Amino acid sequence: MTVPRIGVTGGDPGGIGPEIVVKTLARAGALPAAAYVVFTDPRVIETEAAHLGLRLAVRAWDPDDPPEPGVYLAAVPGPFEPAVPGLVTAGNGEASFRAFETAVAAARAGRLEAVVTAPISKAAWALAGHPFRGHTEYLDRLYPGAIMAFWSDRLKIALFSHHRPLGEAVAAVRREALVDFFRTLHRDLERAPRGPFRLLAAGLNPHAGEDGSLGREENEEIRPAVEQAAAEGIPIAGPFPPDTVFLQARGKTDTVVAALYHDQGLIAFKLEAFATGVNVTLGLPFVRTSPDHGTAFDIAGKGVADARSMEEAIRLAAAFSATGS
Amino acid sequence: MTVPRIGVTGGDPGGIGPEIVVKTLARAGALPAAAYVVFTDPRVIETEAAHLGLRLAVRAWDPDDPPEPGVYLAAVPGPFEPAVPGLVTAGNGEASFRAFETAVAAARAGRLEAVVTAPISKAAWALAGHPFRGHTEYLDRLYPGAIMAFWSDRLKIALFSHHRPLGEAVAAVRREALVDFFRTLHRDLERAPRGPFRLLAAGLNPHAGEDGSLGREENEEIRPAVEQAAAEGIPIAGPFPPDTVFLQARGKTDTVVAALYHDQGLIAFKLEAFATGVNVTLGLPFVRTSPDHGTAFDIAGKGVADARSMEEAIRLAAAFSATGS
Repeated sequence: MTVPRIGVTGGDPGGIGPEIVVKTLARAGALPAAAYVVFTDPRVIETEAAHLGLRLAVRAWDPDDPPEPGVYLAAVPGPFEPAVPGLVTAGNGEASFRAFETAVAAARAGRLEAVVTAPISKAAWALAGHPFRGHTEYLDRLYPGAIMAFWSDRLKIALFSHHRPLGEAVAAVRREALVDFFRTLHRDLERAPRGPFRLLAAGLNPHAGEDGSLGREENEEIRPAVEQAAAEGIPIAGPFPPDTVFLQARGKTDTVVAALYHDQGLIAFKLEAFATGVNVTLGLPFVRTSPDHGTAFDIAGKGVADARSMEEAIRLAAAFSATGS
Repeated sequence: MTVPRIGVTGGDPGGIGPEIVVKTLARAGALPAAAYVVFTDPRVIETEAAHLGLRLAVRAWDPDDPPEPGVYLAAVPGPFEPAVPGLVTAGNGEASFRAFETAVAAARAGRLEAVVTAPISKAAWALAGHPFRGHTEYLDRLYPGAIMAFWSDRLKIALFSHHRPLGEAVAAVRREALVDFFRTLHRDLERAPRGPFRLLAAGLNPHAGEDGSLGREENEEIRPAVEQAAAEGIPIAGPFPPDTVFLQARGKTDTVVAALYHDQGLIAFKLEAFATGVNVTLGLPFVRTSPDHGTAFDIAGKGVADARSMEEAIRLAAAFSATGS
C-alpha cells in the first residue's frame, strides 16, 4: 500500500499550533491513510500531549523508508524554551521557522507530497531575523507563481494578488499576468479532489465596470484574459460583478472564484467559512495547506482551541496528494 | 393622530416594481400606520392589481389634507403603453423617471417624510434621455453628500463611495472627506430606528495596512479621520481589517460598518442579506429607501416576485420617519 507523505509543522510554540496538531493527530486513525510527519522540536509536542492528556504515538521518521500509514516525528531541535502561552519570542520564531523550512526542503526534495502548516507569528519570525509575512511569502520567493487559495464546502476562492496595498493590486490587473494566473490555477485544480472545477472570474470595478462606464479593466484586461484562457480549453467565465459572483459560487462544490485582490476574496470567504476554511497554496510542485486562522495567542495554553480547521487542512492535503500530484 | 407621509414609486412598468408595490400595499393594514402615497400612472397600478387579483383601495392624494393612515394615489401620467413585461422601452423609462422626480419634488417641498423607490431600468432611463445610473445618482446631484447605505437585521453598512472605478475609489480615501462622511452618517443615524448606533470603520488595504507595511492610507488618512470623529463625540472605532470587520458587525443590530468602496461593503451585504436587505440613502433632508434588487425583467409579469425586500424598505422608511426627521 502506497500512502502519501504529509508533513505537518507545529507552528509557533506559544500559539495554538502544537495543541491543534496534537488534537488532530491523536486521532490519526480517523484521518485518511497517510504517513503524517510532524516537524517540530520533540519537546514541544511531548509537552503539549502531556498537557492535553492525549497520547500521540510517534515513530522517528526515516525518509528512505517506504511510507506506511501512521504518525512520524521529524525532529527539528529549536531553541526550546519552557512554553509561555501567548508570548512572542525570538526563540519561538526561530523554532517555528526552522520546522517550516525543514519541511519545505523535504517537500522540494520529493520526500513529501504535501506540507500542512500550523500558524506562526510573523512578529516572532521578525524577532528571529526572518522577515517574511508568513508561509505564503516564503513560498512566493521560491515559487513566484504561488497562488493563495481558500477552500471550504461552502465556497472556494483563489487570489490573483494577496499581500499588497489595494492601489498596487488594482494596477497589477493586467491581461498577461491574469492569463498566467488562470493557467496555473487550472493546472493545479486538475489534481484537486472532487473536480473537475470551473472558474468564475470576478471583475475589478463595481458592477464589473458596467460596459466600461465604471472602469476600463474589465474590457481591456480581464475579459480578454478570460477569453484567451477559455480558448485554451480552461473552463472559465466572467468577469462577473464582484458583489454577486460569490453568491453564484456559494454552495457549488465544483466552482472556484478567481478573485482579483485579497479582500475581494477574503471578505466573502471569512463570512462563509470562518471556522472550517482551509488556506491552500497552489502553483507549487507539492501541496501546502493550513488552517485559516492565526496563532490565537489569547487562548493558547488553555486547551480550548478549535482544531476543525487544522483537521480540514490535513484532510484536504491528503485528498490533493491522493489524486496524484 | 399624525402619521408620516411616505411616497412609494412604481418603478419601471416592465419590471417587477408595480407587482411588489401592489402586493405590499394591498396589505397596508399590516404595515406601520402611515399615509402611503403611490406615485405612478394610475393605469399601471390598476392593470397590475387586476392581473394579480388583488384589491388596492386608493384615494386621490391631496398634499394639503392632514395625513391619515391609508393608501393614496398621486397620479403621474406617463406615456402609458400596454405592459410588455421585460421589455426595455423609452416610454417605460420616461414613466418611471417622471414618477420618481415627482415624488422627490414632493419630499423636497416638505410634503413627504420619506420616499420608497421600486426598481427602475437604467437602460430605459437612458432611452428616455435621463442619463442617471439610478435613483442614488439623481439624488447625489441634488445632495452631494448623499450616502448609499444597506440595512438588514444581520448587517448594516454605509458606503464612503459607490459608483466609481476601484482605482478612483482608492484615490478618494482622504482624511477630510472621511471626516465629512462620518459626520453625515452619524447625524443621520441619530434619527434611525433602534439606535443609538456605533460605527466600525473598515480599512482599505489587506489587514488594514498592517502598521503601514501593506499600504499608507490607514496611517495617513483613515486613522486620523476616525480619531477626529471620535474626538467630536461620534461613537466610532477602527480602521479594522476589511476581511473581518463584517464578522465583528454581523448580528449586532446597533453596529454599522463604514465601508470605503462599493464592493467592500456589498460583497458582505449581499452574502448576508440578499432577499431582505434594504437600500437606504442617507444625507438627505428626507429618507429614501428601496429594495436591494433590480427590475428582475426575467420574472416580470409572472406574479412570482418576492415582495419581502420592498416590504422591509417600506417598514424601514416608516421607522425612520417615526423617529423624527
